[in-house]
Order: sequence, then C-alpha cells, then structure tokens
Amino acid sequence: MANFDDYFKTNHSRFESELCEWLRMASVSTDPQYKPQVEQAARWLATKFEGLSFKTELIETCGHPIVYAESPQVPGLPTVLVYGHYDVQPPDPLDEWITPPFEPTIREGKIFARGATDDKGQMITHLYGTEAWVKATGKLPINLKFLIEGEEECGRKGLGEFLAGKYDQPNRKALELIDADIVVISDSSQYAPGMPAVTYGLRGIAYFELRLSGPKQDLHSGAFGGAVSNPANALTQMLSALIDLHGKIQLDGFYDDIVELSETEREQFADLKFDDEAFMKGLGVTGLTGEEGYTTLERRWARPTFDINGLWGGYQGEGAKTVLPAKAGAKFSLRLVPNQDPKKVYESLQRKLNAICPPGITMDLIDLHGAPGSMVPIDSPYMTAAAKAIEKGFGKAPVFIRSGGSIPVVNSFAEKLGIGTLLLGWGQDDDNPHSPNEKFLLKDFHAGIRTSAQLWEEISKIELA
Amino acid sequence: MANFDDYFKTNHSRFESELCEWLRMASVSTDPQYKPQVEQAARWLATKFEGLSFKTELIETCGHPIVYAESPQVPGLPTVLVYGHYDVQPPDPLDEWITPPFEPTIREGKIFARGATDDKGQMITHLYGTEAWVKATGKLPINLKFLIEGEEECGRKGLGEFLAGKYDQPNRKALELIDADIVVISDSSQYAPGMPAVTYGLRGIAYFELRLSGPKQDLHSGAFGGAVSNPANALTQMLSALIDLHGKIQLDGFYDDIVELSETEREQFADLKFDDEAFMKGLGVTGLTGEEGYTTLERRWARPTFDINGLWGGYQGEGAKTVLPAKAGAKFSLRLVPNQDPKKVYESLQRKLNAICPPGITMDLIDLHGAPGSMVPIDSPYMTAAAKAIEKGFGKAPVFIRSGGSIPVVNSFAEKLGIGTLLLGWGQDDDNPHSPNEKFLLKDFHAGIRTSAQLWEEISKIELA
Repeated sequence: MANFDDYFKTNHSRFESELCEWLRMASVSTDPQYKPQVEQAARWLATKFEGLSFKTELIETCGHPIVYAESPQVPGLPTVLVYGHYDVQPPDPLDEWITPPFEPTIREGKIFARGATDDKGQMITHLYGTEAWVKATGKLPINLKFLIEGEEECGRKGLGEFLAGKYDQPNRKALELIDADIVVISDSSQYAPGMPAVTYGLRGIAYFELRLSGPKQDLHSGAFGGAVSNPANALTQMLSALIDLHGKIQLDGFYDDIVELSETEREQFADLKFDDEAFMKGLGVTGLTGEEGYTTLERRWARPTFDINGLWGGYQGEGAKTVLPAKAGAKFSLRLVPNQDPKKVYESLQRKLNAICPPGITMDLIDLHGAPGSMVPIDSPYMTAAAKAIEKGFGKAPVFIRSGGSIPVVNSFAEKLGIGTLLLGWGQDDDNPHSPNEKFLLKDFHAGIRTSAQLWEEISKIELA
Repeated sequence: MANFDDYFKTNHSRFESELCEWLRMASVSTDPQYKPQVEQAARWLATKFEGLSFKTELIETCGHPIVYAESPQVPGLPTVLVYGHYDVQPPDPLDEWITPPFEPTIREGKIFARGATDDKGQMITHLYGTEAWVKATGKLPINLKFLIEGEEECGRKGLGEFLAGKYDQPNRKALELIDADIVVISDSSQYAPGMPAVTYGLRGIAYFELRLSGPKQDLHSGAFGGAVSNPANALTQMLSALIDLHGKIQLDGFYDDIVELSETEREQFADLKFDDEAFMKGLGVTGLTGEEGYTTLERRWARPTFDINGLWGGYQGEGAKTVLPAKAGAKFSLRLVPNQDPKKVYESLQRKLNAICPPGITMDLIDLHGAPGSMVPIDSPYMTAAAKAIEKGFGKAPVFIRSGGSIPVVNSFAEKLGIGTLLLGWGQDDDNPHSPNEKFLLKDFHAGIRTSAQLWEEISKIELA
C-alpha cells in the first residue's frame, strides 16, 4: 500500500498556504461585483489541475464557469467523479467577523475565512490527495474526474444547463465527460467532533401548494357561517387528514415502496447515542413528536414526513374580523425516503384531496418540485472503501449516518448517470459555513487530504462488475 | 281601534319632505369634518320630539350626542323603548351615485340618499306613527321612549359609556331612564319584496385567537422534519378537531344548553321556500355544506357554527421554502344560539385544545370577544302585537325570521335591562345601506309609519305581568 507520510510532511505548510491563497479570492457567486474574483478562483484551480497534467477545461456557462479536469483515463480502472464548488457565500454581516473574511487567518489550529469549510477547504483535500499520488508515485490507481462548479451558492443554473447538454460539443458531451462509477463529495460535516462519518442516505422531497377557493368574495361569518363552506376550515380538515395522530401519512400505498431501515442501520443509529434532551434544549422545545415506533434520528433521517411550510387565509391583522374568507392556501412538503416516487405521491395526494374536498370548495394542487431520496447501500464496496480510507486518514472508523435533507446535485447524478454518491464531510457542525467567522480545523483539513489519497487506493481494489 | 287613515293621507307629502330635509344633513359620524351636520341632524330630531311635547334631551357624550325623548309617562301602561340612529355611513365612492348622496331625490317611488334606509328613513317612521297618536287623538296608548344615537356607524363609544353609567346624573341614571318592557328597532330588511318580517332571534358569538409556538426559530424541514412538532401542522390538527365532517362541533356539552328549533319554527322556515340554487349562484359556489339534518336557513339562523376567520404561519411568498415554522396562528369564531354561554364555550375550548396540543407546542388561546344569542319567543305577546301591526300596516302578515349575525346593542339591552327586542325591518335587501345609491321605497316608508301607529295600539293591549 502506498505510503504518503513523507510527502504530506514535506508539503504540510504549502497545502495550508495555498489554501490561504485561494481563500483570499473573494469568489462570491451571487453578487456581480465579485465576478473578477470568481473567475480568478476558477483559473487558480484550473492551473492546479494542469500542474498534475490533468486535461483541464474552464467550461463557460450562462453564469460562472465550471472547472472540469480529468486524469489520463486508463481503461479497466474504476472512475471517480469528485464534485465540489469554488464559489462562496456572501460574507455579511462583515462587522461580526473577528478577522476579515477574505484575509485567511490561522488561530488555535483553525483557519478562519469565508469558504474555509464550504467548500474550498474541503474540496481541495481531494486535489492534494490526488497530487500525492501523481507527485510521489507518478501515477493514479484509478481514473479521476473533477467537476467543480462556481454557482452552488446561487442556484446552480450553469451546472443545470451543462448537465442538460446545453453546452455539449460534438466531441464533448457532458454526460459522457463526467460518466463515472461513483461520485465523491466533501461538502458537509462529521457526525460530531472526533466522529468522522459517511453519509450514505438522503431524503427526497415532494413539495406542493394547495389553493382553496370558496365563495367569490369574503362573506360575513354571521350571515353565512354554517351553511357556506369555509375554505380556511376546509384547509385544516384536508391537511390534517394527510397524517394521523401516530405520525403516519394517510395516502394510499404511501409506505409500499419504501426501503425500510435494516436492523443493522437501527443499531448503528442507536450506537450514536443521540441526546434527545440536548436536542430539545437547543431547539427550545419541551417535547418531541413524530412517527410512532421510531427514534428521533430515525425520524429525521430515514422516515418520510409531512410538514406544512406555510399557510394563509382570511384576516391576519389585529383584533377580530368576522369574515368567512373566500380563499385559503398552504405550502406543504413530504420528505421521502429512498425508493419513494414523488410522482406517485403527487397522484395519490391529488386523489385523496379531491375525495375529501368539501362541496362548494374548488381546489388547485400545484406540484412545486420533487426529488427522490437516495442511498448508497452500506454494504456496497464503495462504502467499505470509504470507511477504510477514513479510518486510515482520521485514525478512527467512521460512523454511518443519513441526512434528512435533499441534495439536488446528488439526485442529478443518480438520474443522469445512474450512479451513487459518497458524502464524506470533513467539517464540524459549528464551522459556520453560511455565517460570520467560517472556519475549518487544520487537523480535519490534513486528515481529509490523507483520507482522499487512501480512498483512491481503496477504490482501486474494487472489482468492477 | 284608532283609525289614522285621514291623518296619514293629509300628512303624506309632509312626511316625505321632512325626511328629505333631514337627509340633506350629512350626518357622517366617522369623519370629523361632518361634525356640524351631525349636530344639526341631532338637533333637528330633538325639535321634532319637542313638537310632540316629549321630554327631550341631547345627551353629550365623548362622541356625538344621543337624542333622548320620552312621552309623559303614565303608570300602568306598557313602555316601549325605540332605538335607532341618526348618523350615516360615509358616501364614498361619490362618483357612483346617480344623484348626490345628500340631495335626496325621488325616482320611481324610491327616495335616494345616504341614510334613506339606514337608519333615518326607518327610524323616523316611529316618530310619525307616534305623532299620529299625539296629534289625532291627543294621547298615546303606551309610554314611549326614544334613544337615538349618533355613532352607530363608528363604534358607538358614546352609547357604550352612556349605558355603563358614565353620564349619569343624580336624578337621571341611564338604566332607569331607558327602562322599558320591550325594545323596538327598525334598522334592517324585510325577508323579500312583499314579505315583511319580524326578526325574533339573533345568534351570539365567541371569537378567539389561537397562537401556537414550537421551536425558538424557523427550522430546516429536511433536517428537523418528522421529529420536531410543527406548529402549522398542529394548528390544522387542533382546529380540525373542533368540528367533525357532519358539521357537529366537538366540544364537551356544547349542545346541552341550546334552545332547539321548534317544529313550528322549522315549518315557518320551510314556508319561506328559500332557494338554495339561487343562493349558491349568488355566492359563486357549486355546493353547500353544514350541520347534517338542517336546511340552509336553519344552519344560517338557528344553529351554532365554527368558522376560521383567518390563519397564518410560515412562508407565504412565491415558490417553495423548506421551512418548519416556529409559529402559527388562527382567528376563529363560534356563532352561538340562544342560551349558549360564551364563557362556557371558552372554558371547554381551552380544555379541549390543551388536551390535544402536541408535545413541543405551546398554545395561547385569547378570548377576543363574546356575546350570547338572543330571542324573543314567537309566542310572546309582543311578537303577536308586532305581527298584527305589520299585517295592518303592510297589508300582509309578516314572516318570522331569525338572523345569523349578532347585534351588540340588542345584547346590551338584554344584559343591562333584561328585556328583549323586536327587530322590525322595513327595508329591502337591495337598499344599498352601505353603498352608493342608498334608497328606501316610499311605500315601505309609509307602511312603516302605519305599522308603528298600529304597534303602539297592539302593545297597549298586552297585560303586564
């Protein structure tokens, strides 16, 4: 097995100083005034890949360029696509930063700067893990492709168009270019300090707006109440019928397709010893609730949900107004678990709501967006490879976790390429990625570099099907 | 029985011209610029009562004066309190009036002016009905008191303070002054053209605001959904639990006290041949709903209701936001029927909502206001008297109807004096009382005068307990 200890030792401070150099480029993607720095950051990264003799391209888009780089491709080797982003969040509020956001500063073993953890600092670990192979051994054990975008913090329109083939050229079609066996993303957090993690599952989402109309205008609730359907009443009746008091969603066949938690997963979650009391204290609540028969982590990570995200209707001002409103509406979403289909959810929801919509009420159900959940099986060889690499890089075996949210790009890779994603977060929960004083622990930075180099070796051992 | 045919014939056009004179005084109570006209209208009315040798007073209040007048009180005779108001709604939008609001104009048997029906034209019928007795016979068969306020259209603060005793003098206490056996108010409509009516029941109201709080700040619905109680979900669950799908309100003992509709009432309502199809068409709805086992009129007039008047929470803007809101709330009201106690409703509501409030949600139930329903029994001698008088005055027996709304002043008289109110509306539903081109049919005006004179006679025949 390759040993890069000497290489990492020799280049230890260069890695840090180069990251600082990159962090000084204020690549705030959402604000046009930063456009030159965004391009500077993209070119800087491209130059690094060129230094490894990677075939490198700045792909121009409707927005900021995508940095694409690939190692010389060797047939028969596994191919890894590393996704990341070089753009950063705006730094406001500036006066809350202890040191300026674009003057990277090292204090107490942490590097403080906008982009330190999200995502320049995490992304670049894969550049240096790769560099170690190229510079120290002269070759890579796998094929590597890097897709590093510049609009992750501002709607990723350019990447969307790229994946849709809009910038395809006759000899360079996006989906062929980035085709791989697995995706690796380092843009998240460890489970807790000293507990590196592999995130192997994400929830999907199905997000809707329901608009109800009753009488053509607001009515006096005294003269008409009791005889005319009230859209606000109907809204509460219809939405509350979608979930029972045991937390079970009441749609036909809703649970039929879902991948249930295995006993192994439940044990692994239990081993994390999630502290409900501390969680409640942090949120300022005196109780928790959810689907019966599941723990808090299971409910957050691996069970579907129904949440009203917004609702409105009638009089919202001060005091009393005796109105029977003409309209009421709500936005709501269901988080889905792997193998649930947002389209099927929409169809059964439409059937259910139509069936229970009271006389005199017209409903309009708008499908705002949907994405399926995703999961890399924990017994997949890529998971095993990631676990071994982390154990070597961080000196500690990772825990296997899931996340309750959805990451659209992971869905894109699954849909477009049919491949899974390893979510390997090197950060900590308190790294302030979208807040003042963003930081990244240097020990996590270097452990990430070591892990990356090990990961390429572990993946090289996987027999391709 | 007194016959005033000749008197009414002789004074027919004077009644109309005097009403026009009064309508020219723009007594818009809500707008300070009309203050002189408001006072002019009050004085004009007071002068009329003085012309009947009534003891008359302009009672100054925090707002506009109350006109109080009483006939010489004869012990042993029934006493009637006539309530009305001399102030009017603002005339806007002015450009929609065919003839100016304060230049009364007679067209096609209707008098057009602001205040024509609400309430100058209706109120003054009782002045002329009374005048007929005084002028034609030299005496009144009953004791009469008139309480005509000037702030009915702008919050009636002055009357409220008057009834609360704020303007009491040692020899003139408000509640002794206006004490009576029955109140008469003409400030509403007949059931339909050619169908004069007596409104013998009003619904009460209990109006609340429910505020729910969950986590101390909005949360990401992906990371937290499914484990943390969502106040918007809780709101729909809690409110929808207050009424079932058969329209029955789900509060302990809620129906225990109510005065059920009698068979006679249900037959009378049925005789009105209310047209559900026309009603739906007017509202722009394709169906009606409500408490099972009751007709539309029964539901509107004589059954309790639960209506959400407003609700809010979370994200109400464009598109999707995956938020688990920290707060949600609603305003809602229950219309009550006679003998239901708003305080008991509040208490059982508080118990019920507390019992079903999910873990992690804090609730605050605010009692915004409450008023009981009211009813004069249809077999009461006052109802019989009113029916006979209307049959003579309008040439047609009245129908007995109820109203779904609440009239605060009726509750005040019931609470403060313990007496009921005869609601005798001479107007039509399309008289535009708060809109441009307000009008009053002259035949309704004169029928109202005849009815008033007859009513005093009919009431004089009632044996006091």
